[in-house]
Amino acid sequence: MKLIAFDADDTLWVNEPNYVDVKQELCTLLSHHVDEETLTNRFYDAQIRNLHIFGYGAKSFILSMIETAIELTDGAITGYEIQQIIDVGRRLIDFPIDVLDGIPEVLETLSKDFDLMVLTKGDLFDQESKIARSGLGHYFKHVEIVSEKNEQAYQRVLQKYNVRPSDFIMIGNSLKSDILPVVHIGARAIHIPYAITWVHEQVADEHLVGKSFTTLESARELLAILKIKEIN
Amino acid sequence: MKLIAFDADDTLWVNEPNYVDVKQELCTLLSHHVDEETLTNRFYDAQIRNLHIFGYGAKSFILSMIETAIELTDGAITGYEIQQIIDVGRRLIDFPIDVLDGIPEVLETLSKDFDLMVLTKGDLFDQESKIARSGLGHYFKHVEIVSEKNEQAYQRVLQKYNVRPSDFIMIGNSLKSDILPVVHIGARAIHIPYAITWVHEQVADEHLVGKSFTTLESARELLAILKIKEIN
Repeated sequence: MKLIAFDADDTLWVNEPNYVDVKQELCTLLSHHVDEETLTNRFYDAQIRNLHIFGYGAKSFILSMIETAIELTDGAITGYEIQQIIDVGRRLIDFPIDVLDGIPEVLETLSKDFDLMVLTKGDLFDQESKIARSGLGHYFKHVEIVSEKNEQAYQRVLQKYNVRPSDFIMIGNSLKSDILPVVHIGARAIHIPYAITWVHEQVADEHLVGKSFTTLESARELLAILKIKEIN
Repeated sequence: MKLIAFDADDTLWVNEPNYVDVKQELCTLLSHHVDEETLTNRFYDAQIRNLHIFGYGAKSFILSMIETAIELTDGAITGYEIQQIIDVGRRLIDFPIDVLDGIPEVLETLSKDFDLMVLTKGDLFDQESKIARSGLGHYFKHVEIVSEKNEQAYQRVLQKYNVRPSDFIMIGNSLKSDILPVVHIGARAIHIPYAITWVHEQVADEHLVGKSFTTLESARELLAILKIKEIN
């Protein structure tokens, strides 16, 4: 049986806008210390620097916010203000999950004919919590949360479940994490772009030359492309 | 084939003393604000409160240290001092891994006759990094990092690998996480206590009544108890 894996954030549900909102709150909290452009740049630098130390996810994001605030105020920021930053960041842990249009219906239909998997990178605790809060968990036979979605990670997952690349389909919004490494291991990838993409996940057009994958506008188009008869 | 799973922290390598050292550094950093006993108690409260929000691991520990410092100084702690706390906490991300006595030899021998797994709870990023730094990764056919080690988590792992409880052996230092839930699902558990146990992992004696498991002094005794002929 074919295995269809879905990315989670911004594929099954809205995620990035929550991070953008929290970063915007950080701008507001620090507006008397620094302008927005400087903050945005220095915060991105902190995030990338900390990616190798703390990984992805809410806790890493909060720690990068704190470090950026300390750095940009030369340590003058108070404990009270840092607690405000933590409290704003905490929203990333329990925001209500806004499932994307068409997802429940598509999962309902696909789960009758395929083994479905959530295959996401990030913080284990964050991602498990989001899956639980989404109410979508029961559609998925498997959940795999990995620290980075590269070719090796996909190969490990396929080996673990004894699935050949020709029997694997990955669906996601990130060209970098969901599409290119999957194409490179000879499996099928379906790209459903989301309105906004974190800079770190963006891919230059030149990296797409010669790669074959399908791009859809919404998850609703999956059934047609996977030749599944829709049940209404 | 039987599946033997090893807990990681304080079973394969020294972990808890690193956390104790970092907490001790926090005491030193805050010594002009608060006495050690108060700090220890409030920090433990913060850790337990944050366990449900941030989970286990280094990042959660650092955030709890920051919150405790802000709370105990009524927000008077400076950004500069908080950066010191983060820098001390960062040691939890890259401390050198001190593999426990006898572990490499035991894994070398067992890996010839059994499928070995690392089965640990905690932060995905932390735990993967420690496995890589330990140099023990090649002995393990599987790695499973879960957010909590309870009966459901063990059942999910056994289902995933299609292993019956009677073919599963769990080895670890925590009665709460490695032994009791494993005994409760009808599998075999071998307890190898470590010198110190985090308060949160401690179990009252009354919970052990009627439970069958084996306690060993060191991993070196595993080969005899598993009736494996040692090769020298």
